[in-house]
Amino acid sequence: MNSKILTVGDEILIGQIVNTNAAFLGDVLFSIGLPVEKSVTIGDDEKMLLDEFQDSINNYDLTIITGGLGPTHDDITKPVLIKFFNDKLILDDKVLKHVTEIFSTRGVPMPATNVGQAMVPAKAKVIWNKNGTAPGIWMEQGNKVFIALPGVPYEMKAMINDTIVPMLKEKFIKNLDYVLKQKTLLTTGVGESVLNEMMGDVQSIIKDDKLAFLPSIEGVRLRINVKAENEEEASRRISEIENQIREKIGEHIFGEGEEILEEIVGKILTEKKLTVATAESCTGGLLSSRITDVSGSSEYFKGGMVTYSNKSKVKFLDVKKKTLTKYGAVSEKTAKQMAEGVRKHFKTDIGISTTGIAGPTGGSDEKPVGLVYIGYSDKNKTFAKKFLFGNFRERNKKRAAQMALEIIRKELLNLK
Amino acid sequence: MNSKILTVGDEILIGQIVNTNAAFLGDVLFSIGLPVEKSVTIGDDEKMLLDEFQDSINNYDLTIITGGLGPTHDDITKPVLIKFFNDKLILDDKVLKHVTEIFSTRGVPMPATNVGQAMVPAKAKVIWNKNGTAPGIWMEQGNKVFIALPGVPYEMKAMINDTIVPMLKEKFIKNLDYVLKQKTLLTTGVGESVLNEMMGDVQSIIKDDKLAFLPSIEGVRLRINVKAENEEEASRRISEIENQIREKIGEHIFGEGEEILEEIVGKILTEKKLTVATAESCTGGLLSSRITDVSGSSEYFKGGMVTYSNKSKVKFLDVKKKTLTKYGAVSEKTAKQMAEGVRKHFKTDIGISTTGIAGPTGGSDEKPVGLVYIGYSDKNKTFAKKFLFGNFRERNKKRAAQMALEIIRKELLNLK
Repeated sequence: MNSKILTVGDEILIGQIVNTNAAFLGDVLFSIGLPVEKSVTIGDDEKMLLDEFQDSINNYDLTIITGGLGPTHDDITKPVLIKFFNDKLILDDKVLKHVTEIFSTRGVPMPATNVGQAMVPAKAKVIWNKNGTAPGIWMEQGNKVFIALPGVPYEMKAMINDTIVPMLKEKFIKNLDYVLKQKTLLTTGVGESVLNEMMGDVQSIIKDDKLAFLPSIEGVRLRINVKAENEEEASRRISEIENQIREKIGEHIFGEGEEILEEIVGKILTEKKLTVATAESCTGGLLSSRITDVSGSSEYFKGGMVTYSNKSKVKFLDVKKKTLTKYGAVSEKTAKQMAEGVRKHFKTDIGISTTGIAGPTGGSDEKPVGLVYIGYSDKNKTFAKKFLFGNFRERNKKRAAQMALEIIRKELLNLK
Repeated sequence: MNSKILTVGDEILIGQIVNTNAAFLGDVLFSIGLPVEKSVTIGDDEKMLLDEFQDSINNYDLTIITGGLGPTHDDITKPVLIKFFNDKLILDDKVLKHVTEIFSTRGVPMPATNVGQAMVPAKAKVIWNKNGTAPGIWMEQGNKVFIALPGVPYEMKAMINDTIVPMLKEKFIKNLDYVLKQKTLLTTGVGESVLNEMMGDVQSIIKDDKLAFLPSIEGVRLRINVKAENEEEASRRISEIENQIREKIGEHIFGEGEEILEEIVGKILTEKKLTVATAESCTGGLLSSRITDVSGSSEYFKGGMVTYSNKSKVKFLDVKKKTLTKYGAVSEKTAKQMAEGVRKHFKTDIGISTTGIAGPTGGSDEKPVGLVYIGYSDKNKTFAKKFLFGNFRERNKKRAAQMALEIIRKELLNLK
């Protein structure tokens, strides 16, 4: 079983629109066991459409096409389907009634071109589009299925969820003799290759299954993919692999799937009934912004200071002038005093601070761009950690904010 | 002249990552006159890669491949290129030095697998990757060009802008008999349809050229596209259209091309030698974070307070307890006092504040989710503006931060 996504539209090719439809469809098809092997985007061009249809018939059980179903002259998906399947258009009364109603609800007269929306291929099953005027089209040849859907995301998504997924399960899944399952583990603070080394012989852990390392600024995601005979076996193998990975690098795994670090930290703070305040220099407010991205964060986040000048570090955070003179704003001592100061002023359990050279200018031999100290303070201890990130201001801010969150997490959970 | 984008990566096929690389490349290639005709995404699969390479040689002048260049076992783009071009890998000393330096800057030992990053096809031109360990690869066969780049967006983008675009222009563009030119004007704070109405008869402005309205959370971009016989004629038509648009909606245009609002505001503050401080409630630090995304912002940004509780609004910003009791934290009066307070404490020329119901919970009939007040204070005046955004927390934060910056811009330039 394999499938293909075919997105039709010049606006995607020239980058005016990011192809979120393909991501949505890829996710849905993977989750029901019809993984996408190829995703293609082309413009409204007859020859290219016909070539892609031919490729689909030759190589794919399922092809989902989005776009090119509108009422204007550059929407050619339907006529090309007709040509390819050697079919003809017929009027669908139910669709015509629906289209007419949509226009009357909007209180505007229906342009004549929209009657064309109710014309469907004679051989097609018509897919109801409750949110728009273009119906979906389901066509089969041999055992190959083509589904054409409108490109408007919320119309397409509703049709997929309401109608297509049940039809696909009926057509393809009930006779499948295997199950695909995946799980993603989220790490941060450690690079791809270091994780790889820490895990030792990856192949002996995953055996015939798959493990992908997906790095980003925020960290490395580890995705386990399993193909098994049944659901139970798939789950068993996933947990077996997961357990072995956790044994090796467990302390660096902060979450799973779509979880984000600020949510995880927020949950732990809530559970432990602890509060936090931020003192930011190089991250400039990014850390508090991430913490407050979480709904309900006002329960544990009391506030923060963005102290961009030495003066404000002294005035609002009680950093000692002497410390600034002797060690500089970007130093372990300053980071510690900032964390202590903000904890005191906001009367929180935890104070966390960042100070560094965000760049791209302002570095020196002794204190290069990318040098960041992150300070942590609670009632038992105060410390600061030193990091050397890279040359990019925005990335340095992001990595520093991420590491600050990770330091809080590890402290809350007593991890090394 | 036609080109193709080939994105390699399972994570895109299964929808874990939205393919923003393809959008970026489509945009760049279109803008330099090498429009993309087909964009294909496949997994890390040798046979499928070889098939796509063959399709590229048969049908496309240019193919840009992203992804699959990393150091781990599932990165196969390089070995498959070697196979397809019947080439071999050689060690590139310059790249090895670069990769080694990256690890030593990070202060971590280099895993052995990373030496592989410095192995490049013997026939390739190596594209310098200043931001990462995987170099880009430029290979030619006949007149067909293949370019393989890492999938990490910021690495890939820098390589495209710094190196690939000039090389492509040299290779393909200098002999063309027409010129494509585009210019993007950036607006914020006003919706697409309102802009459209303010502009009146758009067709009479653009005539045979094209104008696209590209809406996003940050505002609406207006992209003018012109195809002309020569550079001069293209420039003339672009400025003619631009002037007419500016006549109609000039005060809402904050910049051009890739400019961002915080940079524009930073420039004006620098020119006028003025300073600013932020007092944030609902934006939670996002506003100061955006201001400090700009290199050199420490010249005009003195710092900020993130006051998430009523207590901290009183303690750090001198908001009156009576105001909070009578009008609430989300009110015009509170916003004004926050802006005044932060201006006083940081001794800046301008104070800017945000207070609102970010959502998704916490709303009431009187103060619904999405209600935001933005306060502004300078030596001559203090005011607050009311906004009603939507139901999404992150979007509300983003729109509020954007509007706060736009209010500063309009005040600095005395726009209505």
